[in-house]
Amino acid sequence: MTVKLGPNRYGKAEVRLVRVVRDGPVHHLKDLCVSTALSGDMEAVHLTGDNAAVLPTDSQKNTVYAFAKKHGVGQIEEFALLLARHFVATQPAVHHARVEIEEYAWRRGGPHSFVRDGGEVRVCVVHHDRDGRDTVVSGLKDLVVLNSTGSEFHGFAVDEYTTLPPTTDRVLATAVTARWRHAGPGADHGESYEQARHHLLEAFAGTHSRSLQQTLYAMGERVLANRPEICEVRLAMPNKHHFLVDLSPFGLDNDNEVYHAADRPYGLIEGGVLREDAPDAGFAWE
Amino acid sequence: MTVKLGPNRYGKAEVRLVRVVRDGPVHHLKDLCVSTALSGDMEAVHLTGDNAAVLPTDSQKNTVYAFAKKHGVGQIEEFALLLARHFVATQPAVHHARVEIEEYAWRRGGPHSFVRDGGEVRVCVVHHDRDGRDTVVSGLKDLVVLNSTGSEFHGFAVDEYTTLPPTTDRVLATAVTARWRHAGPGADHGESYEQARHHLLEAFAGTHSRSLQQTLYAMGERVLANRPEICEVRLAMPNKHHFLVDLSPFGLDNDNEVYHAADRPYGLIEGGVLREDAPDAGFAWE
Amino acid sequence: MTVKLGPNRYGKAEVRLVRVVRDGPVHHLKDLCVSTALSGDMEAVHLTGDNAAVLPTDSQKNTVYAFAKKHGVGQIEEFALLLARHFVATQPAVHHARVEIEEYAWRRGGPHSFVRDGGEVRVCVVHHDRDGRDTVVSGLKDLVVLNSTGSEFHGFAVDEYTTLPPTTDRVLATAVTARWRHAGPGADHGESYEQARHHLLEAFAGTHSRSLQQTLYAMGERVLANRPEICEVRLAMPNKHHFLVDLSPFGLDNDNEVYHAADRPYGLIEGGVLREDAPDAGFAWE
Amino acid sequence: MTVKLGPNRYGKAEVRLVRVVRDGPVHHLKDLCVSTALSGDMEAVHLTGDNAAVLPTDSQKNTVYAFAKKHGVGQIEEFALLLARHFVATQPAVHHARVEIEEYAWRRGGPHSFVRDGGEVRVCVVHHDRDGRDTVVSGLKDLVVLNSTGSEFHGFAVDEYTTLPPTTDRVLATAVTARWRHAGPGADHGESYEQARHHLLEAFAGTHSRSLQQTLYAMGERVLANRPEICEVRLAMPNKHHFLVDLSPFGLDNDNEVYHAADRPYGLIEGGVLREDAPDAGFAWE
Repeated sequence: MTVKLGPNRYGKAEVRLVRVVRDGPVHHLKDLCVSTALSGDMEAVHLTGDNAAVLPTDSQKNTVYAFAKKHGVGQIEEFALLLARHFVATQPAVHHARVEIEEYAWRRGGPHSFVRDGGEVRVCVVHHDRDGRDTVVSGLKDLVVLNSTGSEFHGFAVDEYTTLPPTTDRVLATAVTARWRHAGPGADHGESYEQARHHLLEAFAGTHSRSLQQTLYAMGERVLANRPEICEVRLAMPNKHHFLVDLSPFGLDNDNEVYHAADRPYGLIEGGVLREDAPDAGFAWE
Repeated sequence: MTVKLGPNRYGKAEVRLVRVVRDGPVHHLKDLCVSTALSGDMEAVHLTGDNAAVLPTDSQKNTVYAFAKKHGVGQIEEFALLLARHFVATQPAVHHARVEIEEYAWRRGGPHSFVRDGGEVRVCVVHHDRDGRDTVVSGLKDLVVLNSTGSEFHGFAVDEYTTLPPTTDRVLATAVTARWRHAGPGADHGESYEQARHHLLEAFAGTHSRSLQQTLYAMGERVLANRPEICEVRLAMPNKHHFLVDLSPFGLDNDNEVYHAADRPYGLIEGGVLREDAPDAGFAWE
Repeated sequence: MTVKLGPNRYGKAEVRLVRVVRDGPVHHLKDLCVSTALSGDMEAVHLTGDNAAVLPTDSQKNTVYAFAKKHGVGQIEEFALLLARHFVATQPAVHHARVEIEEYAWRRGGPHSFVRDGGEVRVCVVHHDRDGRDTVVSGLKDLVVLNSTGSEFHGFAVDEYTTLPPTTDRVLATAVTARWRHAGPGADHGESYEQARHHLLEAFAGTHSRSLQQTLYAMGERVLANRPEICEVRLAMPNKHHFLVDLSPFGLDNDNEVYHAADRPYGLIEGGVLREDAPDAGFAWE
Repeated sequence: MTVKLGPNRYGKAEVRLVRVVRDGPVHHLKDLCVSTALSGDMEAVHLTGDNAAVLPTDSQKNTVYAFAKKHGVGQIEEFALLLARHFVATQPAVHHARVEIEEYAWRRGGPHSFVRDGGEVRVCVVHHDRDGRDTVVSGLKDLVVLNSTGSEFHGFAVDEYTTLPPTTDRVLATAVTARWRHAGPGADHGESYEQARHHLLEAFAGTHSRSLQQTLYAMGERVLANRPEICEVRLAMPNKHHFLVDLSPFGLDNDNEVYHAADRPYGLIEGGVLREDAPDAGFAWE
């Protein structure tokens, strides 16, 4: 038998970094969770345990903290690129770096007091390769939205196991996970994120939906129509079922008023929308 | 050996109720998690399996949904009392009911579109006894707050296992769980909740803290000082440690700027504040 | 307005301690999660932020680790008592200590290799007061069990919201949380735990059940009947509903064969069994 | 702007199926979580909301339950293939199906009584395409293992952010996620799973480790060396750090005895091992 090493990477996951910036009595807060993953000349460590090529994950963690001090933390995409390029530039055995960051939002409660905004989490995944290529994917997760009308589901395929009745008015609820790929460098990542999020929400609220797939596509399409810096959007949207409760045994009607919010199982719709002329994604989605 | 039945209760936990109210094209949403627990003449079911006294938990669930239709859902405290009184009034074997409700907040995204507000969860626990007594505890959980300065910790007891250095400037962060007991009936529960929450936040932000205990007490005291309808506040506040990262090995200082947000272990501060003349709590906190 | 400090305690929660003992090439492992909580003369710290009475939670954490080295870790009840007594004995302001420990089980995979046993977690809660009283509660959580027959539910109370059909054969499944109080000192805690767990399982498997309450009582009663060192058992058992799937639309019968395991809502049965002559519980259950 | 639909799939996630088989008084239990995902001619539903090609996720759920009755549930890989082939064979618009199953283990506690084994979860992911190709990936997750010695880490790359001291004796702990690809059809999936799991554990316990990467590779290699039906193994292994506690401030040494088990951050090692002559993976890992 001859075996070989396949795809591999290693790094430090979930480094919890909080940075406070003091602007006189007014403070500013960045709250991040940073994960690094490096790859390259890693045959020896796997096959023989020779660690000469291995920058410890502990050093990667230290770098995250030290860079937060040396360079500050602006948009997460830029902080991630800074880290990724550093590891590739300084470690000969490291040919490729992937950095993923989650950012938790806080609202101001006072000059130096903050209240965690528990809604969606902003995320990014960047790659840097020693051949010079960068990719930047931005996104969000846990954006929970619900339309209480304006959603239908009928005209679907019917087989011998189909019992679902068609409906012309249902609750449509989901927890949006969205990722969008930047066409190239140079985006204003703060503005881009706010606008992409805005268009996702507007498309969700504004689409009269005949299926969750249609809503998903409309959300991705609207982001692309309005944000030239973005070339592809990928979405995963669970159909968080809200079942109308049968109150007829109690002599009560239920005209789309009282629902049971179910946990499992749930529909899961995954799909992407991209420009015809989108550049090759390369390793962007890995 | 002679053994006997001790304290007991049973019910349906975590009934997920969503109610939509249509005000023309503008909809309104209530999103609740309701748990009921009944007690009374329950010797037979425990000792012999005779279920004659047992209203099925399935019936309790049905009642939650049916009541949402028949009576609507206003403030959660009132919906909980309605349910608790119903079970005691209609089931001879049920002498006491406890109803706990969590309410999840949503922001408006359109006339019939909503975005889940992922911050704190509003809660209540009410009891109703067949002797006519009601108790109402309101509260919240998962309210995550952080002060980036204005917090000290020094002058503490020192023993042979103490290595913590005193500090005059630290990050103070916690996830507030708060419960407050109403002195009697008649509160405007919506206004009361909003104001209690406001005073908790103001006291957290406004207290120059020499210990998390001091902050906790100030929060409870401020609610009592401003809300006559409330007679007792209980708080549980984990000290979510933010450790200053030692950057000196990298030739960098760290003047309260870069922190590691730790998971475990954490300090846990629990305490109550109550009026001298607060009525007896009875079963309110059970 | 005059307000006062109510019940309070503070400590370090979830100290994750792993201890390795080397018996030549054969190693032994203890894996614990320890939480301490102290109370006493704590007026000053709450009212003015004077920390003179406050032993830092950091020192409590250090004590856990240092005691693991100095005294070793045997049965968790004994390690907890050692810690509780230490804090009360050495800190004049501390009048009472509560120590809770969870223990995670590992199976041996080699002389120094271990595989985590992901089943139930063993727990204890001990109290020590400066008046000399100790209480010891042992227990377990997350013990998931299922009977595929031998469970009925009928003859229950019926009201206008009852639609549940009676059944003479259902799946009965639950995740047992059990706590048992020791009548006094001197128990062999390792043997006592193993036997109590054994009797809980035997009673669950061996009781032909007409209600989950009956099963709960039988479990507690059997522990008391067999373990004289235990004077009270408290159990919380969710009814993890397994609903028979209606396959009739597909021309299939379903004779107690295919079930949907539901998440929420669930029944929740809580109850205790105690000896007639059990000593007063005092603060044991706090 | 011209945009197009990218990769997409939809289905029902996390169908919780429990099947009881009665062999006289002795019962047998299968406890599964099944997720289906279909793809094919899905342009219309995304672009216009025309659902003609969409078999409802509710029908997919029904199929899971009906098939459990009609065909029984043997090895999860075979049940998954049965479902995947059914959807592709019966729905003209469905060109490809992916079915993922998790299986939860139970130990016998009596003829019809069971105790959940809370350790690792067995999983599989199968694909079936209308061109006739099948792929089968088996695996497990949440297999938590620990070596208390026999692990070193030194000789690693050092940069300006490296402060980690080298060690020749450390605790090595991880939660193994493993997936292995079958080279072709015809495996005895029950035996194959048990043996693959056995070899993973043996390699973990038996490898004197100079890095977690070396251990990971040894685990994959051992499975391939012993199981000809498997052509590729992919592993993700967090380095669950156990830090030796510094007890020197208390006058105590700590000779690899007392550890703090940390939560975050953690190292994360991901890698694959495959045969030189492994067939093309196709869509197996999607």
